[in-house]
Amino acid sequence: MGAGSGPGNGPAEMRWWGWGREDHRVPLSAQLARLLDGALGLDGVMRDPVAASEVALPTSTLSPRARQRLEATVGGAWVHTDKTSRILHSGGKGYLDLVAMRNGGPRGAPDAVVYPDSHDAVLAVLSVCANERVAVVPFGGGTSVVGGLAPIAGSQHAVISLDLRRLAGVFSVDRRSLSVSVAAGTRAPALEAVLAEVELTLGHYPDSFEFVSIGGCAATRSVGQASSGYGRIDQAIHGVRFATPAGEMSLAALPASAAGPALRELIVGSEGVLGVITGLLLRVRARPAHRIYEGVLFDGFEAAAEALRIAVQDEATPDVVRLSDELQTRLWLAAGEGGGRRVPRGRHGRRARTAALAIVGWEGQRLSVQRRRLHTMTLLRRGGGTPIGEAAGRAWAASRFTSPYLRDELMARGVLVDQFETATTWTGLEPLRAAVTAALTGALSSLGTPPLIGCQIAHVYETGASLTFTVLARALEHQEGLQWRAAKDAASAAIIRAGATISHHHGVGRDNAGWAAAELGPLGVGSLRALKAQLDPLGVMNPGKLILAG
Amino acid sequence: MGAGSGPGNGPAEMRWWGWGREDHRVPLSAQLARLLDGALGLDGVMRDPVAASEVALPTSTLSPRARQRLEATVGGAWVHTDKTSRILHSGGKGYLDLVAMRNGGPRGAPDAVVYPDSHDAVLAVLSVCANERVAVVPFGGGTSVVGGLAPIAGSQHAVISLDLRRLAGVFSVDRRSLSVSVAAGTRAPALEAVLAEVELTLGHYPDSFEFVSIGGCAATRSVGQASSGYGRIDQAIHGVRFATPAGEMSLAALPASAAGPALRELIVGSEGVLGVITGLLLRVRARPAHRIYEGVLFDGFEAAAEALRIAVQDEATPDVVRLSDELQTRLWLAAGEGGGRRVPRGRHGRRARTAALAIVGWEGQRLSVQRRRLHTMTLLRRGGGTPIGEAAGRAWAASRFTSPYLRDELMARGVLVDQFETATTWTGLEPLRAAVTAALTGALSSLGTPPLIGCQIAHVYETGASLTFTVLARALEHQEGLQWRAAKDAASAAIIRAGATISHHHGVGRDNAGWAAAELGPLGVGSLRALKAQLDPLGVMNPGKLILAG
Repeated sequence: MGAGSGPGNGPAEMRWWGWGREDHRVPLSAQLARLLDGALGLDGVMRDPVAASEVALPTSTLSPRARQRLEATVGGAWVHTDKTSRILHSGGKGYLDLVAMRNGGPRGAPDAVVYPDSHDAVLAVLSVCANERVAVVPFGGGTSVVGGLAPIAGSQHAVISLDLRRLAGVFSVDRRSLSVSVAAGTRAPALEAVLAEVELTLGHYPDSFEFVSIGGCAATRSVGQASSGYGRIDQAIHGVRFATPAGEMSLAALPASAAGPALRELIVGSEGVLGVITGLLLRVRARPAHRIYEGVLFDGFEAAAEALRIAVQDEATPDVVRLSDELQTRLWLAAGEGGGRRVPRGRHGRRARTAALAIVGWEGQRLSVQRRRLHTMTLLRRGGGTPIGEAAGRAWAASRFTSPYLRDELMARGVLVDQFETATTWTGLEPLRAAVTAALTGALSSLGTPPLIGCQIAHVYETGASLTFTVLARALEHQEGLQWRAAKDAASAAIIRAGATISHHHGVGRDNAGWAAAELGPLGVGSLRALKAQLDPLGVMNPGKLILAG
Repeated sequence: MGAGSGPGNGPAEMRWWGWGREDHRVPLSAQLARLLDGALGLDGVMRDPVAASEVALPTSTLSPRARQRLEATVGGAWVHTDKTSRILHSGGKGYLDLVAMRNGGPRGAPDAVVYPDSHDAVLAVLSVCANERVAVVPFGGGTSVVGGLAPIAGSQHAVISLDLRRLAGVFSVDRRSLSVSVAAGTRAPALEAVLAEVELTLGHYPDSFEFVSIGGCAATRSVGQASSGYGRIDQAIHGVRFATPAGEMSLAALPASAAGPALRELIVGSEGVLGVITGLLLRVRARPAHRIYEGVLFDGFEAAAEALRIAVQDEATPDVVRLSDELQTRLWLAAGEGGGRRVPRGRHGRRARTAALAIVGWEGQRLSVQRRRLHTMTLLRRGGGTPIGEAAGRAWAASRFTSPYLRDELMARGVLVDQFETATTWTGLEPLRAAVTAALTGALSSLGTPPLIGCQIAHVYETGASLTFTVLARALEHQEGLQWRAAKDAASAAIIRAGATISHHHGVGRDNAGWAAAELGPLGVGSLRALKAQLDPLGVMNPGKLILAG
């Protein structure tokens, strides 16, 4: 199966069994491989995914009439039922998705892939799907890691993937008001390219940046790597155009509004279960003339977090903050061996192997960057930090989008690998970190696969921070699902028990739906269901996600 | 009728026919009186409100059983049906409310005033009211200027005012996480007093600061005078406890969450039509050690707005921004004659009478204030601004909460006086200002009462700014309602035509409900109604406001 099998001149497809284009891999360094082989008890055997020809898909159940009506709506060339298209839309890029794909048995497949080219076409497709009782899974960049793209028909007779790649492009730029109107299917790199021409930026760089669509970011409340500075995507969204089976909504509040509840905030984060985001009005910023990222070593994660808290609350928040705990630092340094990443030498190098490394960065005008950097670094030094210079920052920047590539390599070596993430107050941070680490360690150890658990603060706020746990363990072959579920349940229960959020930036999807219900409470879930009944009365929109209805 | 007739040791009541405590008035300066007498063609006669004894109230329709059950819920001492209590809860403090009160004929009155003392008591009262078909108008500080407190029974047999003053106090302070948990009935000054003891501040100072409740601010998406720096109230709200006829909801997302749609943002701004906010989790800040406010003169409003835009987009937003157009500047200076406000002397004084005055201010640590001030002032100077020093800033600070007091004096002189407010993009600002000014001038001139229309930017954002129009005209006695409605409709239609928001900080209430529907669109209104049907199935919550249901 070739890359770039998507229609038209749209963005290239990712490899069906993993991350990235087929022509690009990021091999594991020998040092990291050795470290993991030893720590996790791996067998050193490399596992290839099955051949595409071996992938088995369920038979399409789409009725001929529904197919005809869909073709009448978007054109016959834009309703695909070939195996390749169905495989490429059979899920997102979560660990369970990839395990299933590599083994040749995706967890379901859409009965067709439909490519509308406008807001009106989306409305028309939703209307056909409601009439014909066909479930709809909106598909942006295809990067969900929480099962948000699982092709579940629910109570409908079939399920389509609604690929939004043809809804691409920037409608208008208001340079004076720093705002742009953009089609929701636009990929993040394409948007940044257009904005760069007029010296603007959205500044939204999630790990999935290379493939993610901007509408997908909005639908899942994405948070980028520089979001401590540029803000989360929800903070940049001032307006939204929304297509639902019950009709359309167009909400704008620029720059702010007190005209009742913010319905916009219900559409943002709705993950396709209420309708399809087709257009966005986004706040952008002047493109930074200057960027500096640098490394700071701390004797431990807790001390580093405290230093960051003090800086943030002193109006000294860097635009980029990535604080790794001791294990994560060690893994990161090991991964860079032999590659573009430079391990600090001498004194710093020795210390780095037992320290917590923070990458901090600033973007903007030169003077502003200099001043803000000085302010932050003064406080981090006072908090016990040792700056190790811009080489570490450059290494981070050069490899900032590689972690999903590395996951493929780890899976090939037989590793269970995932990230669970949450956020809480500064006061709640250490107890939460301890609780989740203990829960994951306990759950996986009891299965005979004691894990490595790394932890990272990737986003900081005045009131708290996010925590991202990286979980690595020897995969229990043919029982990956059970093993993963044990780890996920243990971590999620610990998060909910601590009163923290089940997701800071991955969203809910299928994997977190039960836990989100616990977070929202019965009346919160009831409110979302009431809203769904209003906008999607027949329950065709993305069944089984977010609120489990449908 | 005496002041402070509220129960217990709670906050004092405002005078029933106007703003503020009975022992405090802010007289009009002779200069401002002369200016307005001439410009508006006033007769110089002072009109007193009727005596309290002359106020006529409708007979209470609350059924004995409903009253009994309410008394059983909150205690007999906390259900008031006396005339004083009913008058004091018969509306908010909008122009139409005050016209009606001064004339002795409030636009309805609650059949009883009920004072619950806890979240559970609120839940119990709502349950009784749903069972007994009694409408509920939540009452915080009683400061609504958009008819949000109108005692409308709708389809219920009676209506109560639910006064939340006993839900007061700070539950907990998390100093490290800069967050506090507070009861919703807490008044803003009381909250700031508690926070001051631990060197914190919310920094939320709407014009109504002296009387407003923090839950009322949340329910109406209030914006304070320093919100360019501290943020709007909705940005400070991280969690909310909500009592509805269908049960309770407790939502917290600290510091941020991607767990689906932000239901919290539906409760914030819900204006009592879905339920009652009983508690809030708020982000606070370190109390500023240093505050500087100063005046800057510009040759015109448009140039000043442009200078502010450039400053804001260059990361040089002051914490306080109040830019008055030429007329508003002249009125402000005239109002200060003889008072604490100092009119600039000499060259600046002469220029001030034809200029646009901006008050800009910074709060925080001394070094940060100095640096930020230098940055902003450099850009404002470059944009044509002439700094006139801190005296103007001190004068502003000394009189920052006086405008509602002045309104009473103006009404006594027979002036129609109100503020209509909106917000839009920087690009849309001048067209919107021109359109609303023309609409107001046309509507009032055609009634034979040509107005003075002042305009102010009170809040700035990267993407745009708010606009507040002050309308002054000779009141058409006994036809104030018709006259006001003509002005309001003309301004609102111009705002909606321009694609701007019907409210940036006053909320929707009764006065803006029709216009908010136009802004939200049919499916948006339908979504809010679906939510109301879920949370308030019998329609007892604040009928006739926000979405006009009930």
